[in-house]
This record gives sequence, C-alpha cells and structure tokens, in this order.
Amino acid sequence: MSDTREQILDQIKVQGDLVRQLKAAKESKEKIDEEVARLLALKAKLGGDAPPTNQKFTLKTPKGTRDYGPQQMMLRQGVLDKIVQVFKRHGGEAIDTPVFELKEVLTGKYGEDSKLIYDLKDQGGEILSMRYDLTVPLARYLAMNKISSIKRYHIAKVYRRDNPAMTKGRYREFYQCDFDIAGTYDPMLADAECVKIVVEILDTLDIGDFVIKLNHRQLLDGMFQACGVPADSFRTICSAVDKLDKSPWADVRKEMVEEKGLDEAAADRIGEYVRLSGGSELVEQLLSDAQLKAVPNAVKGLEGMQLLLKYCSLFGLDKRVRFDLSLARGLDYYTGVIYEGVLQGESAAVGSPVKTSQQNGEQASEQATVGSVAGGGRYDNLVGMFDPRGKAVPCVGVSIGVERIFSVLEARAAASGLKLRTSDVEAYVASAHKGLHEQRLKVLNQLWDAGIKAEHSYKLNPKLLVQLQHCEEHQIPLVVVLGDAELAQGLVKLREVTTRQETNVKLEELPAEIRRRLQTA
Amino acid sequence: MSDTREQILDQIKVQGDLVRQLKAAKESKEKIDEEVARLLALKAKLGGDAPPTNQKFTLKTPKGTRDYGPQQMMLRQGVLDKIVQVFKRHGGEAIDTPVFELKEVLTGKYGEDSKLIYDLKDQGGEILSMRYDLTVPLARYLAMNKISSIKRYHIAKVYRRDNPAMTKGRYREFYQCDFDIAGTYDPMLADAECVKIVVEILDTLDIGDFVIKLNHRQLLDGMFQACGVPADSFRTICSAVDKLDKSPWADVRKEMVEEKGLDEAAADRIGEYVRLSGGSELVEQLLSDAQLKAVPNAVKGLEGMQLLLKYCSLFGLDKRVRFDLSLARGLDYYTGVIYEGVLQGESAAVGSPVKTSQQNGEQASEQATVGSVAGGGRYDNLVGMFDPRGKAVPCVGVSIGVERIFSVLEARAAASGLKLRTSDVEAYVASAHKGLHEQRLKVLNQLWDAGIKAEHSYKLNPKLLVQLQHCEEHQIPLVVVLGDAELAQGLVKLREVTTRQETNVKLEELPAEIRRRLQTA
Repeated sequence: MSDTREQILDQIKVQGDLVRQLKAAKESKEKIDEEVARLLALKAKLGGDAPPTNQKFTLKTPKGTRDYGPQQMMLRQGVLDKIVQVFKRHGGEAIDTPVFELKEVLTGKYGEDSKLIYDLKDQGGEILSMRYDLTVPLARYLAMNKISSIKRYHIAKVYRRDNPAMTKGRYREFYQCDFDIAGTYDPMLADAECVKIVVEILDTLDIGDFVIKLNHRQLLDGMFQACGVPADSFRTICSAVDKLDKSPWADVRKEMVEEKGLDEAAADRIGEYVRLSGGSELVEQLLSDAQLKAVPNAVKGLEGMQLLLKYCSLFGLDKRVRFDLSLARGLDYYTGVIYEGVLQGESAAVGSPVKTSQQNGEQASEQATVGSVAGGGRYDNLVGMFDPRGKAVPCVGVSIGVERIFSVLEARAAASGLKLRTSDVEAYVASAHKGLHEQRLKVLNQLWDAGIKAEHSYKLNPKLLVQLQHCEEHQIPLVVVLGDAELAQGLVKLREVTTRQETNVKLEELPAEIRRRLQTA
Repeated sequence: MSDTREQILDQIKVQGDLVRQLKAAKESKEKIDEEVARLLALKAKLGGDAPPTNQKFTLKTPKGTRDYGPQQMMLRQGVLDKIVQVFKRHGGEAIDTPVFELKEVLTGKYGEDSKLIYDLKDQGGEILSMRYDLTVPLARYLAMNKISSIKRYHIAKVYRRDNPAMTKGRYREFYQCDFDIAGTYDPMLADAECVKIVVEILDTLDIGDFVIKLNHRQLLDGMFQACGVPADSFRTICSAVDKLDKSPWADVRKEMVEEKGLDEAAADRIGEYVRLSGGSELVEQLLSDAQLKAVPNAVKGLEGMQLLLKYCSLFGLDKRVRFDLSLARGLDYYTGVIYEGVLQGESAAVGSPVKTSQQNGEQASEQATVGSVAGGGRYDNLVGMFDPRGKAVPCVGVSIGVERIFSVLEARAAASGLKLRTSDVEAYVASAHKGLHEQRLKVLNQLWDAGIKAEHSYKLNPKLLVQLQHCEEHQIPLVVVLGDAELAQGLVKLREVTTRQETNVKLEELPAEIRRRLQTA
C-alpha cells in the first residue's frame, strides 16, 4: 500500500465531498459516475476493512465474448500456426487493418446483416464501426492503395451483434482466418486453389469428416430468374435460401412468400432446385434442364461449376467437394463461386447432446449449424465499390471459422482429460534451505542469458517440498537445487522431475548440461 | 458480372424508387443512407460505364490508425516473435481478453486519461468501451476467475483517442505487449525480473542504446508530502510530473500552480527533487535528506529502491538502470515501483529531423518523446477494485511499446534500402508453352501435398519470360518449368533462379529434389 490508512481516509473524505457537490450541482450522470468510481476505488484501498461497495456491477465479459485462459491459448495458438502454415504454402502474404473502419466503408456491403454491425459512439470526429469481416477491409485496402493483385492472409477478430450461441462456438467477437486471391486471372484457377486450401486446413487440423459444398451465385440468380423471381428480389430471396442450413424448407418458403412477397408457384419451383446436390453429373443434368437452359446466367454459372469441379478433381478433391444448390451464403457481395466447409456426423458435435434436444423441434437444424467451419467465394465488384472510378479488382477468398474449430477441439480435449502444459519452462531454480535467494537470482540470470527458460519462487525462503511440487504440477522437467554445501564447491544439484534422479553439476557447466538433458529427454 | 447489364439497370430503377419513397416519407437519415449506398453499389456494378458516384467519401483508415502491408507485417511478426521468446523464457503463459469491456470495468482506473477512452454506441444492451490497456482487463480477468497468481503475457491492440503523432509511432490503435506477475510474493523479486525482461527484449531487438528509468510511487507520494502537497492532490500533481518527459519544468510548474492550485513554494521544492537521477548512491543521499527522512512513505519508497537496485545488480543490469525522480507514469493505479525503457541518442531517431524542427520550440521534447519504448510498474490494488470483497492480488508488470519499436526499425529498414521478402514461396511452377495449365495444377498439387511452398500464374497460358521475372522479383529460389518434350519422358526442368542453371528431374522425385536444393542453398 502506497498510502497510509489515514491518508486514504483523508482522500475518501475529499472525494466524498466532491461527489456530493457534483450531485448538488446536477452535473452529468457520466461525470458523477466517474467520481463515484474514484471514491469506491479509494475505499477499496482500505482492503478487507472496507464494506463491499467497490464492485457494484456483475463481473463479466461483454455479451457474446469470452476470455481465453492459458490452456485455451495454447490450443488456439497451435491451430492458428497450422493454418498459417497452409496459407504460406500457397504463397500468402500477411496484412493487418484497423479493428474499426469509417462507418461509410461498411455501409451497403452486407445486405440484411448490416443491422449486426457494432457502431462506435460519436465522440466528435469520425463516425466509426467495428469491422464485420476481413473482406470489406481488404477491398478498402486494395482500392486505397491501388493494388491490383495480391495473395494475402489476415488473421484477426471481427464483430457481429448476433445472437450468441457460445456452446456452438458462435460469438459476437470472433477470430477469422482469411485467405484471398485478388487479381485479373483466368476462370476458376484461383477459385479451385481456395477450395484446396480449405481442404488442406481441415485435413491438417484433423477434426474429422467434412465436405466442401460448392455453388455459384450466377447459377442461383439464373435459377431465380427461371423460377420467376423478379430481378430486384434476387438478393433478398437469396438471403432466404441461405437460411436453409438452419431452418427447414417450410420456414424458408414461408419467409419468401409471406415476408418477401414472392409468388407461391415461384417459391415451389425454387424448392425443387434447392434440394439437389451432387457432382459433375448434376451439372450435366441441369445443363439440359429446359427452364435453366433458357437463362444465360444459369448456363454461365453451370459452365463455371463444371470447370471448378474439373480443377478440384486435378487437386485430388473429388471426395471432398459437393455441388449443392441450397448453398446461398448470406452476404451481398458474392458474384461467382461460393463454398462452405461443413463438418459431418460425429466430428460436428460440441457440447452435450442434451442441450440440443432441449430446444424443441430444432434438433435437425442444430446439427447442421455446428457443422460450418469455413466459407467463402468470389466477389468481383467489391473493390470497385471503393474506387473513385469504379475500377474493379476481381477477388476470390476463403474464411476459416476457427472459433467453431476451437469449440470442437476444446470439447475433444476436455473429454480426453489430458492437461496441456501452458508454459515452456525448462528449469526451475530452487533453494534447499534459507538465505539463498541472491544465489538463486545469479543462477537464474546465468540460465536466462544462455537462453534457457527458467523460473523460481518469488519468495525469499520457500520450502523445498513446495518448490518441487510446483515443478511436478507444471510438468517442468528439471530442477536446479541450490545448497550451501554444494555451492561452496562451485556445484549445484540437477534433479530430473519425473525420475527424481539428482546429480551434482559444476555451476559454470550448468547451462550446457541442462541443454544436453533437454535434448536427450 | 453475375447480372446482365439490363438486370442491373432494372435493379437500379427499383432501388432509386425506394430511395425516393424513403426521402418522401422522411425516414431516418441512417435508413436513407443505407439504401442510397445500395443504389450506388448497384451503379458501381456497371463498372467503367457508370458515373463515378459510388465513392463519396475519402478512402482512408480512421484517424490515428493504419494498415500494415506485407513488408510491415514481416518486420512486425519478427519483432513480436522475439518478444514472445523472452516472455516464454521467464515462464509466461498467454491469455486473451475481448477488445471491448463493460464501460464500468474501465471507469475510475485511468485518472485524467479516462477522457481518451473510446466508447461504443448504445445499440441496446450493455454499454461498452474499447480497452485502453491490457492491465485493467488482466485485473478484471483475475478477479472474475479468482486467480491469485499467474505469470501471463498478452499481445493485443489497445485504443486511445489521443492526439496521434504517427511519424513518432504514436497511434490511436496500437499493439501492446504486456508481461505481468500476479501473486503475493516477497518484495522486489518479481519487480526486478520485469526490469530484466525489458532489458532482454531491448537487447534482443538490437535497437541501440537505452536505459531503464526507475522510480517508486511511494517515494513520489512521500516527496509530495515532504514538499507540502495536500494528500488529495497527490495523483493530480503526479500526473503533472509525468509530463516532464514531454514538457520543460517551467510548463509543468505552471500547470501545478495555475491549473492545479499548488502553492508556489511546494512546486519549487518538487522542482529540486525531480531533477535528480543516479544509482544507489542517490538512494543513500536521499535517505539522509532531512525533509524526506521525516516522511515514512518516502523512507519506505527509498528502501524499496535500494532493494530493487541490488537485485538489478545481481541480474547484471547496473549499466542499464537509472533511478530517476522525474519519472511519474500517468496512470492512477500504480502503487510501488514504476519504470520506463527509454532509447538514447541516435537510436531514438525516427523519420527525418526536418519534420521535428517544423514544430517550433519543441525540438528538445521531441527527442525525449520518441525515446520511451517500454513502461510499467507495481499495482497492488487494482484487482481488489474488482473483487466484491476487495480481496487484493498484488501485481507488477511491463508493457513493451512495440509501435515505437516498429517505427524505429521501419525507418532503419527504409534507410538501408533492402527489400524484405514478404512470402516464403520455395518453388514456382511455370509453363514453357501453351496448353499446360492442367499439368501445372497436378505438379502443384504434388508439391503442396509434400509440404512445399509453391505457386503459379493464375493464367492459362502465361509467357515464360513473365513467369521467370515474377520469380526474380519475389526472390523465389526455384522454378519448375513444364514442357511437352520433358513431360513425355516423365521429366521436368528445375531451374535455380539466381544462377539460372537448369537440370532435368524425374517428376516423382521432384519434391525430394526441391527439398535437397533448399537445404543446400
């Protein structure tokens, strides 16, 4: 404590007077709250003696967000490292952008999802919003810097004021891991590589069986046209179709007809198409479908799918991809191929099945929701929306849903009962008896300067047993035990924690000996 | 383009009508803006033919923020990796917290700096603010999870609505790299280790000459008391002293007397003390200072300094640390040791000196400002402010000012003229002539599956020269050149980019041969 009790009591009195004055003067609530908080902080300084008035709100993270503890961070860092490895294998360069953007940058990019954007308070100056994804910031970055081609990855948090479902890994603050290929290239070459990247990542993370669903916005638009949807309703009908992974067809149909005013016959025609899925044989079949054949957009979309499936086949992905007409993706900005990586069967399970069945009638949809762990597509017009002359930079990209992957892996780790190490400490420096703390600091310094990960108790005279227990608990492999008898001869004891074997080592040879032990271990 | 020109024109008409209706109905500006943005987006779809109406605002990042391009990210990732290595050498565990907190969590923690906190807009639900540092979130995390000891590091962005000075590396969004030791331990052991960590980091980053200034809040309070400052003005006078690294004493004195109502004689007495700096001999001298000797807080602070300097000496830091009475640190929550790592002389220079001298009369202060690259101290009461029963968890920690370090290193890299590689591509797969794109995809797939970082042109029939130029420009070491003649024999050409030497390699041996070449290179 930096102040005496008397001083703190004085300060509390002064601060209390200030709060009373502000209240009497009817100052703003904000100002008063601020000073009340200071008063409470002063009272808190009195520690145990003070009444429990310092904590007036529930201690929590904001709704839909969470802290990551050391265990979770260890797991997460492992996952992100593997993802970055794949991104780099495909020549990805990293960029980073601010966590918020001018609100205007985000406006008009997300369709019906715009309502989920977090806005910052107007505190004078620019009007800002939290980024909603990493794609729009990329487009802004490309247009602003007049970059016409890049292969970039970006791993960062994004923000959506959505209904959180934390057991399923759906948060309001969550990491996205994006890889995008920007540039004017020949059709489907970059698109197929993005699909390959998703497969490599899901394979390397070893999270179980999955499939990549593929579709094409141009085909969807063509299909809507063929079914009789008016052109100005394509996007809104598309966002209804997007709900098919969470809701049954009956609900989606209802939304189309009752909320969005679609003709019933048109909805039923859509219903016929969106139940189709398959491979290149389905493309052939649809290319000879009388309704679709008549719509140029549908034909172009199907031809694109045909080429994509061929390239995927050359990448050895035949068993990993499935053309699926119900895949729509919610965002407005897609213009070509769209895809989504979905976990299948048991690998999609997180949390207990009891939780799922509590929500009446949603069992089927629950399973599907948990499954989506990657998504993306082509968006050829987004960069042009930022360019003063509308100059387009065609882009295709993929976003890995790492939060859901974390959820799956965390659930699996919890089930296994194994405890991950949360630090990498190699050697612990212990005192065998009192009065050795200065010696300990010298030995620690020697180890640190030699690059060895080392720690000690921050007590002057800790008990040996307590120190050894710490090492066992934290799985630290080696303990350096200091004692006067050994130190007098320039020696220390080196103890292996698992075998409890001890050997005397010359102090000057300690770092080298520790390194030798770690290598052979 | 997913829609035909006719369809887009239709959509524009419909959307234009909608906007006109909304305006007629005097809908909210927000709603109208949103629909106008959609209209502009539709117009943008028409590409070059459309008038340049789609981009109505200046394309920029929010004030005080910046993007990081691939070059900067490469440099930054290198710096962060080195810092994490030091943190792990001292047994650090990683945690992460949300980028925003309940506003109440931040209230009353930052003293006069609270005005710089970014608030989120009230969109219904909780009232949130962007985190201002990583220390208060740590305290909230410890109290919320009832953790009484941890050694944690946290690398993340924090937000301050400060006056940005981007050439000096002062931003509104910036990374902090924090290491903190929480727990009830014996005096100064953890504190000295934090100082050691700062020195190790600045050494490993090789950014030039530096010194760690040390002081003690208890000594500062004792000194204020000895100089006749009223107890309830300690914090506000302390935050005036904190400005000494940016402003001359005359300005600080003026603030104390005129703004903060301090007695002139008291201010002058403070002025005598804050010009002192030195080593343990200065501690001795002050311990026999008649004014300070009479104040228990001052004596306790000086005794703490004595112990800290002794431990720093055992860590070999004598030449790296300096006891400096002008060091105050702005934040309210410090209760014991405070410290700051400062670059000295040439190593503190970023940007051109011309820029500095443009700002009249601030030359001297400019240099000092650029210098601070790390800071921290002890805060024993912060966690208790969050605990319902005021249970304290003593903490000490350090924050590395990486943005300033990036600025220094970026300026140095720019001066050197060297170009960093921004991707790690090992092999480029090229076509010697037309019609080979499918072969290319197969070879790429073989390399990726073998873990080799590889890329190609996303064109069906790129010119060989263009492909080879790409490799030279991006410093890619190896090119696999495909040609029908070689492929017919199951061979490909492997070319070393620097030497331009080419050898034929059997296709099935290609990954192994590439790996061999990379190892010998």
